[in-house]
Amino acid sequence: MKQNLVMSRAERAQMAMMLEVCAYPKPGNVDRCHDYPDTRLEHFLASAIMARPVFDEAERNGGRVGRLIHDAVMRTNGHSGGNTHFGAFILLVPLVLGGDIKGTRRVIAGTDVQDAVDFYAAFALTSVRVLKSDELDVNDPASVAAIRERGMTLADVMAYSAPRDMVAREWTNGFALTRRCADLLHAHGCGRGAIVAAFMDILASEPDTFIAKKHGMAVAERTMRQAAEVLAGRRDLVTFDVDCVSAGINPGSIADITIAGIYVALGEGWQWDC
Amino acid sequence: MKQNLVMSRAERAQMAMMLEVCAYPKPGNVDRCHDYPDTRLEHFLASAIMARPVFDEAERNGGRVGRLIHDAVMRTNGHSGGNTHFGAFILLVPLVLGGDIKGTRRVIAGTDVQDAVDFYAAFALTSVRVLKSDELDVNDPASVAAIRERGMTLADVMAYSAPRDMVAREWTNGFALTRRCADLLHAHGCGRGAIVAAFMDILASEPDTFIAKKHGMAVAERTMRQAAEVLAGRRDLVTFDVDCVSAGINPGSIADITIAGIYVALGEGWQWDC
Repeated sequence: MKQNLVMSRAERAQMAMMLEVCAYPKPGNVDRCHDYPDTRLEHFLASAIMARPVFDEAERNGGRVGRLIHDAVMRTNGHSGGNTHFGAFILLVPLVLGGDIKGTRRVIAGTDVQDAVDFYAAFALTSVRVLKSDELDVNDPASVAAIRERGMTLADVMAYSAPRDMVAREWTNGFALTRRCADLLHAHGCGRGAIVAAFMDILASEPDTFIAKKHGMAVAERTMRQAAEVLAGRRDLVTFDVDCVSAGINPGSIADITIAGIYVALGEGWQWDC
Repeated sequence: MKQNLVMSRAERAQMAMMLEVCAYPKPGNVDRCHDYPDTRLEHFLASAIMARPVFDEAERNGGRVGRLIHDAVMRTNGHSGGNTHFGAFILLVPLVLGGDIKGTRRVIAGTDVQDAVDFYAAFALTSVRVLKSDELDVNDPASVAAIRERGMTLADVMAYSAPRDMVAREWTNGFALTRRCADLLHAHGCGRGAIVAAFMDILASEPDTFIAKKHGMAVAERTMRQAAEVLAGRRDLVTFDVDCVSAGINPGSIADITIAGIYVALGEGWQWDC
C-alpha cells in the first residue's frame, strides 16, 4: 500500500481524476480509447494537473468551498476542451477540505451565502447545461440577487438542484453514491478493471442526470437498462460503448461520482496499481 | 495562447510528461494505445502528478540539482511501474531551475561533488540499466568513493556517461537535441500530431541509447533506419510500432528528450491544444 499511504489529499484527488479518465471501456465517456471531437483525453489530464494548487490550498489552509470551486474552474478553463471537471470539483473540494465523507458534512453544514455567490460565478465560467425551466438560471444575473435576497447558502443551492442533478444530490444525502462507489471499488479488487466494474454497476442502477439534461430522462433510463443488460451478459460492452459515443450519450455525472469514489477508496487503502 | 502563458514552469514540466506519454503511435513506447506488462499509462501519469512538489520547489526556491533529481525519483518510485521518468528528470530539473535552455548552462556549470553523490543515490533507487563495462557502477558503493576522491561534479559524471547515453549528452552539448525537438514541434504545428512527428524525426536520425544499452548498438541503428523508412513511406508506422513493442524495443531516451523538447516549446508559445 506504499503508494497510497504517502499520497496527500491533493494527490489523491488528482490521481482519482487521472485514473477515472484512463479507465476503459467506459460507455459513452472520454476514456483512454475515445475522444470526443472537442474534448480529448489530454484536456481531462491537463485539468487534473492544473487543479493542484487549489487542492493544496484546501488541504493546507482550508478556505471557503465556493471560492475554491471557483478557483478550480478558473485554473482548468484555459484549454479548448470546455468544462471537463466541474461536477468533480463540486465533490472533490469538500472531500479535500473535509478529508473524508464524514468531514464533508462539517464543510457542507458550514457553507454560507457567499459560497453560493462564488459558486454561481464559477458556474458562469462554464458552459454547463442548465434546464430552461430552472428558475435560478446561472446565466441570469438576477439569480445571484435572488440568492442573496433569500439568504441561500451553497448547501441550499445544492438541495434546490438535487432532484435534477445527482452530483448536487450527493451534498444532500451524505455522499451516498460516492460511498457506494468506494465500496464497489473495494469489492471489485484493485486497478483499472475495478473502476470500470464500479462505473458499470452504478450506470446500471441510476439514471445519469447529465444524460437526462442533454437528452431527456427517457434516454437516461434507457441507457441505465442497457447497462444492466451488459452486466447480465445480454449486451456487448464494446458495442454499447460505440453506440453511446456515436449518439453523444455520455454519463458525465456518474463519471464525476466515480472520481469522488476513487478519492475516498484511495484514502481507505484501495490499490490503483496492480 | 492563454493556456501556455499562465502555466508555471512546474506545470509546463508536468504537461510535457503527460503530453508525451499520451501521444500515439510512438513506436515501441508506452503510449495511449500501448502498455507494457509491468509499465502502464497510469504509471507514467502518476509519476507526472507525484513529481509536482519537486518542480514547485525548484521553481520557487532553487536548490541543488542532484538533490532535486533524487527527490523526484523518491516521490515517483512508489508504484510498481518501475523507473518511468529518471531520464526525463535529468533534463527537466535543470530546465525548471534555469527556466530555459540558456538557464540550464548556469545550473550545469554550478554543479558540485555533492550533486554527483546525490544523483548516484537517486540512481541506486532505480533499476536503470548500466553497462557491465561501466567503471562507475551505480550499484557499487565504491563508485561514490571514487567520485569523491576524483572530485567529480555532476556535470563531470554526465560528461563521463555522454558517449553512451544521449540524455547525459544533453548536459554536455547545451541541450542540442532538446533544442532540435522544440524546433521540430514548432515546425510541425500544434498538438498531438506534432509530438509524434518530432519524435519520429529524431528516432529516424539518432540511435536511441536506451535501446543500445538493452539490445546493443546494432539494434538501435536498425531501429533508426526503420524509422527513416517509415518517414520515407516505405514502412508502415503502425506495423513498425507493433514490431517494436513485441520485441521490447522501446526508445526511452528519445522519449525523455521529447519531454524536454515539449517543455521548452511550451515556454515559447507552442500550442498543445488544437
